[in-house]
Amino acid sequence: MTGIDDLPVRDELRGKSPYGAPQLDVPVRLNTNENPYPLPEPLVERIAERVREAARHLNRYPDRDAVELRTGLAAYLTRTAGHPVGVENVWAANGSNEVIQQLLQTFGGPGRTALGFEPSYSMHGLIARGTGTGWISGPRNEDFTVDLAAAQQAIAEHRPDVVFVTTPNNPTGNAVPASTVVALYEAAQAARPSMVVVDEAYIEFSHGGSLLPLLDGRPHLVVSRTMSKAFGAAGLRLGYLAAHPAVVDAVQLVRLPYHLSAVTQATALAALEHTDTLLGYVEQLKAERDRLVAELRAIGYDVTESDANFVQFGRFEDSHAAWREILDRGVLVRDNGVPGWLRVTAGTPAENDAFLDAVRDIKKEQSA
Amino acid sequence: MTGIDDLPVRDELRGKSPYGAPQLDVPVRLNTNENPYPLPEPLVERIAERVREAARHLNRYPDRDAVELRTGLAAYLTRTAGHPVGVENVWAANGSNEVIQQLLQTFGGPGRTALGFEPSYSMHGLIARGTGTGWISGPRNEDFTVDLAAAQQAIAEHRPDVVFVTTPNNPTGNAVPASTVVALYEAAQAARPSMVVVDEAYIEFSHGGSLLPLLDGRPHLVVSRTMSKAFGAAGLRLGYLAAHPAVVDAVQLVRLPYHLSAVTQATALAALEHTDTLLGYVEQLKAERDRLVAELRAIGYDVTESDANFVQFGRFEDSHAAWREILDRGVLVRDNGVPGWLRVTAGTPAENDAFLDAVRDIKKEQSA
Repeated sequence: MTGIDDLPVRDELRGKSPYGAPQLDVPVRLNTNENPYPLPEPLVERIAERVREAARHLNRYPDRDAVELRTGLAAYLTRTAGHPVGVENVWAANGSNEVIQQLLQTFGGPGRTALGFEPSYSMHGLIARGTGTGWISGPRNEDFTVDLAAAQQAIAEHRPDVVFVTTPNNPTGNAVPASTVVALYEAAQAARPSMVVVDEAYIEFSHGGSLLPLLDGRPHLVVSRTMSKAFGAAGLRLGYLAAHPAVVDAVQLVRLPYHLSAVTQATALAALEHTDTLLGYVEQLKAERDRLVAELRAIGYDVTESDANFVQFGRFEDSHAAWREILDRGVLVRDNGVPGWLRVTAGTPAENDAFLDAVRDIKKEQSA
Repeated sequence: MTGIDDLPVRDELRGKSPYGAPQLDVPVRLNTNENPYPLPEPLVERIAERVREAARHLNRYPDRDAVELRTGLAAYLTRTAGHPVGVENVWAANGSNEVIQQLLQTFGGPGRTALGFEPSYSMHGLIARGTGTGWISGPRNEDFTVDLAAAQQAIAEHRPDVVFVTTPNNPTGNAVPASTVVALYEAAQAARPSMVVVDEAYIEFSHGGSLLPLLDGRPHLVVSRTMSKAFGAAGLRLGYLAAHPAVVDAVQLVRLPYHLSAVTQATALAALEHTDTLLGYVEQLKAERDRLVAELRAIGYDVTESDANFVQFGRFEDSHAAWREILDRGVLVRDNGVPGWLRVTAGTPAENDAFLDAVRDIKKEQSA
């Protein structure tokens, strides 16, 4: 029987497994940082309406430049980040993964390198591999904050073409201060100059604000975003970036033509019409996230500061065994391979209660 | 003002322009091989219904493996190509461009090469560039058929990792005989072995049948397809492939997780329910295509044999000037950069009449 290894696949793919959390059928799934609130019914109806209209022209290619959608995203950013963003500053793709892939095809690729401060969003390194970009694992402190001096040194030493800064960071949850990002940007400019990609997938859940205002006067800075989390639309696959217009022009050299379907554009536009309702859910989730942090600490767990819709907690001698113990109680959390730690997504109050009951129970058994 | 060239983009992107036909506002647009027939209203309603249902779960990630959709596509292929295809043989992505990108990330990439017989679908070479795969332009005969001996020689000489065979070929329209594809496959196996990708984007319009039955016993053969043309859904961006299950496993090592949105999957499933109606439109378009060929020849043009929903016609001393003359008469055709030739998409009968009137008029002026 022919298997992958009998095919002429690239050497670096041999023995690898596809990325992705286990999709298990469990009552409480708090493992992929999804928003637990279904879209409100009026938005569901509006999506059906907008898609029906788009379907009437589905025989034609979609707007290749997604101008209406990018305009809507720019208006959203302008309003929520307190920084003027125009359609010329915004680019959109099928999930922030595709945004990052396009950035690496443009500014990374064979013979070039990208650096991220790990543990962080593991897709950065995987997309680097997929685009032939060398990957450099940069340092973090024990408490998962970015060690600025060590980070500056790593940038000076490796002179990466692309630097990733994830804030709030996934899977650890903590945000990176603006001053640190500015210092990293300056180090990256001194070293090469490099592009600095600030991944703000979870920024709407942050106690602080977006780093979008830093785009002023920094043409090598890119802020990436997604509608998966704050807009409760993980199923939509809509990621976007804000940057200098030259960056938006540059990624169009590598984007697949008509990459963003007419139904995706229509659905995203409908969601943007309901921004206020969806940001209301974000406020509820922030409160639940804060509750998770407080309760986990009260139970006796270590918890990393969280500015996201998830919380990293520990420490465990064997985090995979702990993951399994929680799963045995009907709650699926995420083992991201950070030794000693697990990650739980903020769900509905009832889901979070179920999770807290499970870990409380485990703690009790241990001390019994 | 900062422009692309002030950014640290990859050297091979400097001075390049994004791919894409000019999107001009012209009464008759026959330039991008779109299906001229809008989806029937019952299908539009079914799409709205299926997307409404998907939107109710849009806060969750989509089915990462798109199992229901791949099952539907497999059933369609089994039925129409007379060859049994299972879900394990099928993979789907955002347009056949993304299918091809995933194939090149898996089997091409840095240090590897891909070969196509040009002129052909220019995205093959562009996606090769985007994935760091070296591109080799293989030969064709003067009449745009594949010169088997020269092709075999090119494969033996260059030992490409991936060979593209587009049939029916775009932009020329002619199909490649099954015996030629078999011989090319054997040459490619003798040379390396390489993967052979048969791009059947236009196969439903062909006088002959699909090459899917060739998959039997050929684990390095891949057939790529799209719903853009025969299914009248260019706006949907749904491409797919059929191959040995090991190939389907292999591309999952490079696919971006959750690459295919829930709305895309829902819309494609709705379209598959209406296959018979849509294939009825294909029959009308085939008749119109044959009429275009006959009329163009009657007017005095050279025409390449067409098995697609478009026709290549010429010869022109200056094909760009001829393109402009047709445009001046309100009809947009495609100048693909094949010296001496233009390409016209088969539209509705009225659109084709408008096109034929335009080129008849031009011929008349020339002989006046």
